[in-house]
Amino acid sequence: MSIIIQKYGGTSVGNFEKLFDFENLNKIADNVISYQQKGHKVVVVLSAMSKATATLLDMASALSKKKPDKRETDALITVGEQMSVALLALILKDRGKKAISLNAFQAGIVTDDTSGNARILTINKKKIKELLDDDTIVVVTGFQGTDKANNITTLGRGGSDTSAVAIASALKSDVCEIYTDVAGVYTADPNICEAAKKLDVITYDEMLELASLGAKVLQIRSVEFAKKYNVKLKVLSSFLNQGEGTMLISEEDSMEKPVVSGVVCDRDQARITFKKVPDIPGISAKIFVPIAKAKIQVDMIIQNTRADGKTDLSFTISKKDFSSALEISKQIEKKVKAEGLVTTEGGIAKISVVGIGMKNHSGVAAKMFKTLSENNINIRLISTSEIRISCMVDEEYAELAVRKLHTAFGLDIKKKSK
Amino acid sequence: MSIIIQKYGGTSVGNFEKLFDFENLNKIADNVISYQQKGHKVVVVLSAMSKATATLLDMASALSKKKPDKRETDALITVGEQMSVALLALILKDRGKKAISLNAFQAGIVTDDTSGNARILTINKKKIKELLDDDTIVVVTGFQGTDKANNITTLGRGGSDTSAVAIASALKSDVCEIYTDVAGVYTADPNICEAAKKLDVITYDEMLELASLGAKVLQIRSVEFAKKYNVKLKVLSSFLNQGEGTMLISEEDSMEKPVVSGVVCDRDQARITFKKVPDIPGISAKIFVPIAKAKIQVDMIIQNTRADGKTDLSFTISKKDFSSALEISKQIEKKVKAEGLVTTEGGIAKISVVGIGMKNHSGVAAKMFKTLSENNINIRLISTSEIRISCMVDEEYAELAVRKLHTAFGLDIKKKSK
Repeated sequence: MSIIIQKYGGTSVGNFEKLFDFENLNKIADNVISYQQKGHKVVVVLSAMSKATATLLDMASALSKKKPDKRETDALITVGEQMSVALLALILKDRGKKAISLNAFQAGIVTDDTSGNARILTINKKKIKELLDDDTIVVVTGFQGTDKANNITTLGRGGSDTSAVAIASALKSDVCEIYTDVAGVYTADPNICEAAKKLDVITYDEMLELASLGAKVLQIRSVEFAKKYNVKLKVLSSFLNQGEGTMLISEEDSMEKPVVSGVVCDRDQARITFKKVPDIPGISAKIFVPIAKAKIQVDMIIQNTRADGKTDLSFTISKKDFSSALEISKQIEKKVKAEGLVTTEGGIAKISVVGIGMKNHSGVAAKMFKTLSENNINIRLISTSEIRISCMVDEEYAELAVRKLHTAFGLDIKKKSK
Repeated sequence: MSIIIQKYGGTSVGNFEKLFDFENLNKIADNVISYQQKGHKVVVVLSAMSKATATLLDMASALSKKKPDKRETDALITVGEQMSVALLALILKDRGKKAISLNAFQAGIVTDDTSGNARILTINKKKIKELLDDDTIVVVTGFQGTDKANNITTLGRGGSDTSAVAIASALKSDVCEIYTDVAGVYTADPNICEAAKKLDVITYDEMLELASLGAKVLQIRSVEFAKKYNVKLKVLSSFLNQGEGTMLISEEDSMEKPVVSGVVCDRDQARITFKKVPDIPGISAKIFVPIAKAKIQVDMIIQNTRADGKTDLSFTISKKDFSSALEISKQIEKKVKAEGLVTTEGGIAKISVVGIGMKNHSGVAAKMFKTLSENNINIRLISTSEIRISCMVDEEYAELAVRKLHTAFGLDIKKKSK
């Protein structure tokens, strides 16, 4: 008797513009019931139907002259998941199953008070367990919680994955299945690279690098959470006959340790460069402390010392943060005695190769640079982590770079011989 | 510094099929802010946009083969009001006002556990008062509560009125304004009777008789509540320049005590007759105890003793309960030795005249019967209360009966002399 958490994303649930189309919800019900019949206890975590959250967000923007209030925006958009869970519970009960829908306040999903981007603090596992022990299928709203003052909060983009992993962790479930519209995690975006293949396993750390780099399969926070609490996470397609998906595992459990597991491209990049800053201690702090205070997440930071004892300091951020970051940079510019700012908003892309095996293999960076160079792709910035190498290139070369690197690192799917 | 509760009905809030039309919500914001600027503390209670609840109920029916589960139906349909309150709070905050939306679980509106038709037990008045004392406009979901086990419940049709009155009572507010799409309470339905006029005041008891008889201005339970806790209730139009509305008052405060305040017609009538039942004690109990157990509300009960020592026993119910009541009646039929059942589902209408002054005036019934008779309208059943006389007539004569009685009791609006 095992506990399984199943999370279904928006497109798997339905479409807010086709309120009376229950085909997908019925498919979910089929799948959930089949697991129950195999003897599993099932907790279902649902996103809002596709276009629900977007429509509700658009409403909030449309009626506001200023930036919509965050608390009330959360109160508004969370009705999307509330509809999903009630509808699935209605279907399950109509089929004679014991089922119950739980909104965040009912499941006791308590978060901090950061409207729009809250973190889960606790979950009322006792209540959920009692329901499971009573053979009830528990259907919980993803993406949302309530803070200690009972305000409704949301967990940020893709937050339903985090809800699922947090519940899996709280219940010590055997596996947390994330149903999505792709068959699993690929070595590259199949839309860019035809030769991309699905991975059967991937380590949490690799997935973290991939998630943060723009592979939109899983929310990064859910992977961190899964790693920290050792939740067995599985990504699979909500449509049948799509195979077994991809299992996320810890490094210890990884047998193969491929040098490169995947190649990803992130176009959501903007860059700001402080030109000719004096190369003295404390400069970086002067720049990055105010930026961190504004809750802007800096991705790459590159400092090139020049011959004249000055340095060019560049950093990249996501496009949405560009205008705020630029405003702050302008305030700092004089303080750090920069000779101007250079900015790039869009038009660039970050190409990264990721692999747990890099730790024990040298030559990956060299091979990457050589491959790009052979294809006349100019590298603008470079950054690395223990299991990742990233190069910033002009956006027009991004897809070519992915394909060439995918081939160079031997990731291409083997074509069947005739 | 007075506390005012303002409740706005669905058509006053918006339309679920025009999600991006915020004109009405902005008008509500105007009105609320104008009251605040006059120095009042305002609690706003909102219904779902028109067509929201109906659409959500239709979804629940469409996906169910059986009768949709009540708990989950409540969980689904309550998102309607949740959207309304978040949207109004967004508008108020966008205009720089302090405002907060509260769902039932946040306002601590605790009900019993009767899904679909729950009764309010308590309200967290401390929380609402604190917010009001902080000059915050508090926007609360109507129609809904949570039971003690934290399940979401709804209060039944028109339940938002009850929410408003319950909050008014809890906060000991000075007045509870019910904004609706009519200008107040009329002596008859203006759609039926052109000569109908708006009443400036009406007693709770008269309103109770009118509400239960089909004048859909206020939910009956809200009037009972208002009477019991002496809440000053005012019905008025949410559209400007429609005058002062109708104030509900207690009998003691009523100066005029009109003999007849209004004439109403209720078409939602079905009738079941047990034919030739032996006229012995205990028969009524055998019939009405099982019907009450099925939570079917019986309206009129008429027993005509026949010459043969047997009796024909008729009762009326609302059309929606007809099939369940008939099923139960068939089971009882033999037990009470009836010689068959006669049923009428629709095709009949109950015409009632209501007035607090009836208590001290005789001749009202006689005048009613005479008026109907003069117009060749046959009376099928008669029932009376202290301040009401009701006659069941064939539906085709219903409107004629209303108009003739309206004239006969001197209620017609005085035409301006030329």
